[in-house]
Amino acid sequence: MSTYDHESAVTVIGLGPMGRALAGAFLDAGLRVTVWNRTPGRDRELVERGVTSAASAAEAVAASALTVVCVVNYDAADAVLRQDAVTDALKGRTVVNLTADTPARSRDAAGWADAHGIRYLDGAIMTPTPTIGGPEGVFIYSGPAELYAEHWQVLDALGGTHTHLGEDIGRAAAYDIALLDIFWTAMSGYAHALAVARAENITARELLPFAQGIGAILPPLFEEFAGDADDGSYSGELNPITSGASSMAHIIETSESHGIDAGVMRAAEGQARRVIGLGHGTDGVTRVTEVLGRHLR
Amino acid sequence: MSTYDHESAVTVIGLGPMGRALAGAFLDAGLRVTVWNRTPGRDRELVERGVTSAASAAEAVAASALTVVCVVNYDAADAVLRQDAVTDALKGRTVVNLTADTPARSRDAAGWADAHGIRYLDGAIMTPTPTIGGPEGVFIYSGPAELYAEHWQVLDALGGTHTHLGEDIGRAAAYDIALLDIFWTAMSGYAHALAVARAENITARELLPFAQGIGAILPPLFEEFAGDADDGSYSGELNPITSGASSMAHIIETSESHGIDAGVMRAAEGQARRVIGLGHGTDGVTRVTEVLGRHLR
Repeated sequence: MSTYDHESAVTVIGLGPMGRALAGAFLDAGLRVTVWNRTPGRDRELVERGVTSAASAAEAVAASALTVVCVVNYDAADAVLRQDAVTDALKGRTVVNLTADTPARSRDAAGWADAHGIRYLDGAIMTPTPTIGGPEGVFIYSGPAELYAEHWQVLDALGGTHTHLGEDIGRAAAYDIALLDIFWTAMSGYAHALAVARAENITARELLPFAQGIGAILPPLFEEFAGDADDGSYSGELNPITSGASSMAHIIETSESHGIDAGVMRAAEGQARRVIGLGHGTDGVTRVTEVLGRHLR
Repeated sequence: MSTYDHESAVTVIGLGPMGRALAGAFLDAGLRVTVWNRTPGRDRELVERGVTSAASAAEAVAASALTVVCVVNYDAADAVLRQDAVTDALKGRTVVNLTADTPARSRDAAGWADAHGIRYLDGAIMTPTPTIGGPEGVFIYSGPAELYAEHWQVLDALGGTHTHLGEDIGRAAAYDIALLDIFWTAMSGYAHALAVARAENITARELLPFAQGIGAILPPLFEEFAGDADDGSYSGELNPITSGASSMAHIIETSESHGIDAGVMRAAEGQARRVIGLGHGTDGVTRVTEVLGRHLR
């Protein structure tokens, strides 16, 4: 296999919606793409477009210098990669694992890869399937910088923005976890708010322009609070935690007056009350960050 | 008092940071402003600028056709307004209560006002103190439309956007609660995410550009899910609840592996698991809204 072939070939393991999007984007960029999926039949459309479907995972990873893995979680990834035939075929080759899981699992997988002579990068995709191949995709990676430098151009075929976050292999997964924490907490709050609004005869579309207004103030507040959190300045001059706790109590009362479970807000209020109980009631919400992690310093 | 005097005079009850900002903005707009606060001394700067400080709450409300109330909650508002001397002085005049509390308290206050011949509008301020007097303030109101029409021009002196949401007096407070639900849940998630990130040696500033990316995708998702929630379409084709629950489990595991309380995410995961348990795992997150409020239909 010539160097050019090597560099222009990529294998994709996992053909869920995201895996199919990745394989399609590599193909559209002119790469030679080989795919494999545990459940057969998911490759039909891709094969029609020119992708090679491997008969086994071992055959699939042997077809390219670079294998991109995107399956449901690391249990599924390990079940494929840690078969002897696959592990053997991967020796000396590179795996970029875009499967989402915890930093601990990424570190464990890197240890396994190292022990078997497999070159290993971890990564995460921060944007939904339709962004793949376009300018809006956001991809993050961690692991050996020289390995990232070697494969960056192939990964760049997926479009969007690609960032190498550092050599600590767990770093991409840690970013992913923190960002998903923001996303899923916010979406849970939105789903709950729509239920409370509906109980008060407010439709989601009526609330929408104001909800989008709240969404729009989050990024600048994130910036302000990021500085506070890093610098250990917790000024709550304009928005003390006591005021937040008071709002939270009103939300819980209104929600529960309609029989709507307020468990998420009760937990958030508990966090705020803990901070107030520790004597930080006049501080801003970033004091919550400090108190949550206080035992780690 | 001439009609002109009537229309160009306003009383502000409550001189916390927001009350002071309101009084200052009215003054800057050329209105004759009278203020009163339970704790004395908060009016000093305003008096230097030309505001009249009343000796009592009754004297304050008697000075203007319109009284704007902005105190910590309805317990505090009622403690001022429901004194006999104040109630008597308010007869035939208008109160716009910008104090934040529950829709139930707004409805109770409107009943009290009606029983005492006091004209009553409820309202809420959706933006922080520094926005008052500028173009970015967002004010919402509910109650009699003709009363809002009568006083709209004075309220408009506060700058920003003013919206009358309907005649149901509890409507502004209900919007306020739903919007605060979104805001405080999201901020709790952000504060928690920063603690998890820090435990993984990621600073808040390092996470920031990606966190802002998450913030930026919320408004379009809010729009998409608002349509789903109103129309009862719960398609989770691109982002099923099962996938969200899997992410939530990874967040909880990582958080707790660092000894960081994951109570908020545990409650959110419980919500998702309940929806999955009811057989809606392939649906999108708006199914959470439907399940939370199912008993109300």
